[in-house]
Amino acid sequence: MNKKKIAIYPGTFDPITFGHVNIVKKASEMFDEVIMAIAIDNYKETFFSLEEREKLCKESLKDIPNARAESFDGLVVDFADKLGTNIMIRGLRAVSDFEYELQLALMNKKLSNKIETVFLVPSFDYLYLSSSMVRNIASVGGDVETLVPKCVADALKQKRRDN
Amino acid sequence: MNKKKIAIYPGTFDPITFGHVNIVKKASEMFDEVIMAIAIDNYKETFFSLEEREKLCKESLKDIPNARAESFDGLVVDFADKLGTNIMIRGLRAVSDFEYELQLALMNKKLSNKIETVFLVPSFDYLYLSSSMVRNIASVGGDVETLVPKCVADALKQKRRDN
Amino acid sequence: MNKKKIAIYPGTFDPITFGHVNIVKKASEMFDEVIMAIAIDNYKETFFSLEEREKLCKESLKDIPNARAESFDGLVVDFADKLGTNIMIRGLRAVSDFEYELQLALMNKKLSNKIETVFLVPSFDYLYLSSSMVRNIASVGGDVETLVPKCVADALKQKRRDN
Amino acid sequence: MNKKKIAIYPGTFDPITFGHVNIVKKASEMFDEVIMAIAIDNYKETFFSLEEREKLCKESLKDIPNARAESFDGLVVDFADKLGTNIMIRGLRAVSDFEYELQLALMNKKLSNKIETVFLVPSFDYLYLSSSMVRNIASVGGDVETLVPKCVADALKQKRRDN
Amino acid sequence: MNKKKIAIYPGTFDPITFGHVNIVKKASEMFDEVIMAIAIDNYKETFFSLEEREKLCKESLKDIPNARAESFDGLVVDFADKLGTNIMIRGLRAVSDFEYELQLALMNKKLSNKIETVFLVPSFDYLYLSSSMVRNIASVGGDVETLVPKCVADALKQKRRDN
Amino acid sequence: MNKKKIAIYPGTFDPITFGHVNIVKKASEMFDEVIMAIAIDNYKETFFSLEEREKLCKESLKDIPNARAESFDGLVVDFADKLGTNIMIRGLRAVSDFEYELQLALMNKKLSNKIETVFLVPSFDYLYLSSSMVRNIASVGGDVETLVPKCVADALKQKRRDN
Repeated sequence: MNKKKIAIYPGTFDPITFGHVNIVKKASEMFDEVIMAIAIDNYKETFFSLEEREKLCKESLKDIPNARAESFDGLVVDFADKLGTNIMIRGLRAVSDFEYELQLALMNKKLSNKIETVFLVPSFDYLYLSSSMVRNIASVGGDVETLVPKCVADALKQKRRDN
Repeated sequence: MNKKKIAIYPGTFDPITFGHVNIVKKASEMFDEVIMAIAIDNYKETFFSLEEREKLCKESLKDIPNARAESFDGLVVDFADKLGTNIMIRGLRAVSDFEYELQLALMNKKLSNKIETVFLVPSFDYLYLSSSMVRNIASVGGDVETLVPKCVADALKQKRRDN
Repeated sequence: MNKKKIAIYPGTFDPITFGHVNIVKKASEMFDEVIMAIAIDNYKETFFSLEEREKLCKESLKDIPNARAESFDGLVVDFADKLGTNIMIRGLRAVSDFEYELQLALMNKKLSNKIETVFLVPSFDYLYLSSSMVRNIASVGGDVETLVPKCVADALKQKRRDN
Repeated sequence: MNKKKIAIYPGTFDPITFGHVNIVKKASEMFDEVIMAIAIDNYKETFFSLEEREKLCKESLKDIPNARAESFDGLVVDFADKLGTNIMIRGLRAVSDFEYELQLALMNKKLSNKIETVFLVPSFDYLYLSSSMVRNIASVGGDVETLVPKCVADALKQKRRDN
Repeated sequence: MNKKKIAIYPGTFDPITFGHVNIVKKASEMFDEVIMAIAIDNYKETFFSLEEREKLCKESLKDIPNARAESFDGLVVDFADKLGTNIMIRGLRAVSDFEYELQLALMNKKLSNKIETVFLVPSFDYLYLSSSMVRNIASVGGDVETLVPKCVADALKQKRRDN
Repeated sequence: MNKKKIAIYPGTFDPITFGHVNIVKKASEMFDEVIMAIAIDNYKETFFSLEEREKLCKESLKDIPNARAESFDGLVVDFADKLGTNIMIRGLRAVSDFEYELQLALMNKKLSNKIETVFLVPSFDYLYLSSSMVRNIASVGGDVETLVPKCVADALKQKRRDN
């Protein structure tokens, strides 16, 4: 009998976009279980708090039965270890992404010999979508409803009203 | 009779460099009118205030008759719409620039189906010139007179004296 | 009265794809006239002969009134000169394209101080389309009808039958 | 009960290197079955014949129980379809690789809406290893025993003796 | 008699890693003297103070007889001038590095016609190592002993305890 | 007493350009001796024969006293070994160059643990100059006198007359 294949998909998800959801969907068709691992990110300030990011991720993934979101502190390789997996998913959008990801993949390899990184490319429609671009568009009042799940669009509007 | 071709050239211009002026000059020979569109940039802190950037841009473009500088708030696609144009100019200096610009071009396309981005490469002398490099050199007292218009060099010196 | 703005769009077009047609369409809305300049390419072997490429380009552009296709021998800067223009259009699809184009733009600048290169990005649907990929797909019997004009798809099928 | 997950890993493998074997090994731990799909490549000349490449691949994979090598003609998406899979493995070594792969992934997506590309990075030791580099080193009599399986090193030596 | 060849190796070194030490070692075998030039960096906040960075660099280089660390204020070209050298060492790890370095090299050339930049690639083991990655790993309690000299690992642990 | 520092600068030099000469000049000011190592290149066809390339290189370097040209067969690491040096010079013009060079540097490292690659960037004027671009321009009758030494321009003209 084969061992259940769990894949973890780490990131800051500040906020989660349709690009991220798309990657989770693809991974969920390849692996038995996909866990979106939300980094606390204590070395750079995030736009949304960890609680907000976790809530938005859970809400956005609720229709994918074998996927769930969970936050973690510490090294992603240790979190993967805790979950009993060595498969890590990363989305690739562009060349500059790739260099950084390669660096990360090699570093994770150094920190944990077992981890394997699987790169997935989001669907054409989300190829050049990033959380920072979404934040920028929302910050000037632009419409992001085609770029992020409804709950995220609402949260961005609320943030703008609060400032 | 052909419609007048207006091109908008958006950016933060913090500060305007000879590279930017060079791009405006090239565009002004291709299109009937060129409008440098200075972004308020409310999601990152700028070195010069919007008023300062606007003043320096106006001063730097004063010898190009069919070009002018104007600041805008909100999405650049909406500003282009207001000006009645769908031609957007962007300068390309390096490969990393290009990836970001491609992302921006595709995102603008998503936000406004009409916008078309035209990429121009600055003259050899300004190929690797950037506002941030100018700020860095000026911050350590380096001479930037060959890199930016006289009014910008003076403004940078004044800033340094004020700090 | 303003001088008529002519843009030349040089390439091998071996064969012309929907990506090329898309670039011509965009350019034709920015400039008064667009001339697709088909290089004889005497230093590498082409899949289609110059006559074939010229015929396919003419056919593919027949619905764009201010665009036409013409072949040329020698340097593109000399051909631009002969046509009385200094505006050159180039399509940008990917980062690796850009490096080569930058090299070409700078070299053309060296050979003719007057030439200015304008880079346009094809529509999303054609972003990663290239002539060589079309040739490869056709060579194994793949369907290229969504990638190239009908006349090119027919010509590729004919070539395959002839081999 | 879950459907068996088959992954296909297409390429020219001219010749297979330790980098390719490494990718197959990684994939074989993630998916139930891995099929190395050797392209006939009728649009460029290969160094080894299809028969030779197939023999060397089979020999090199003989210790990975859930992996096997098979040659195919036509489009890779059709071959994947025939095998009843939509998961395609590709190795990523460098940035320039990635651009080409992205182009391929998007094109395959256009040709078959079902295919999903999974990118894997080879182990550090094989990060910059390519078939063409192996051929070049072998062609000047260099030692490639640390770069390719024994059977490939022998075949390269034999080729050199034959020329 | 030949003039003594001095090479300067500027950077922020926040903190120094085994990658930097490796570059100094390589340079020290090529040139008569290598001076690690630590930038005060008054336009971005550093993790370690200038005094801390200087102390860690001196400690880390103590076994390389013809190398030493020194901090500097102002332009690196002026510091090179003061030291009587025009050879500047820069480490190259990745493609994105290279673009920035090219920009820097060309800018330094503009500021001082004499400076020549020599690029060295660190040993395989340190190819993808960066100061920011070290800071990030340390910030979540990860083990960095294989990535930085002992004194730096200790300083990072101390910083973490202090926060 | 220090050992004499010899640097070897390998390549195909088909033909040598002002960019190559410029790199040799820079290297000759850093190292005691520079040897341009012309590869026989038995796996791809060259435009000029080995004898022609050697003659053109020798002629082009005749004014740099501590530089000379020599052809070699086999692996460059073995040739470096024969000359008693482990310093290899490579010119870097663009990002795509860099990836290939990194691959080569790492491969050479694998083949000979001692070799160290030193990357130099040519002067601004030659930044985007390549042998293949020179061949292409010459093949359509373009003027290459500002791009290559006089002897090379003459040889290119002669070749064109002969075809």
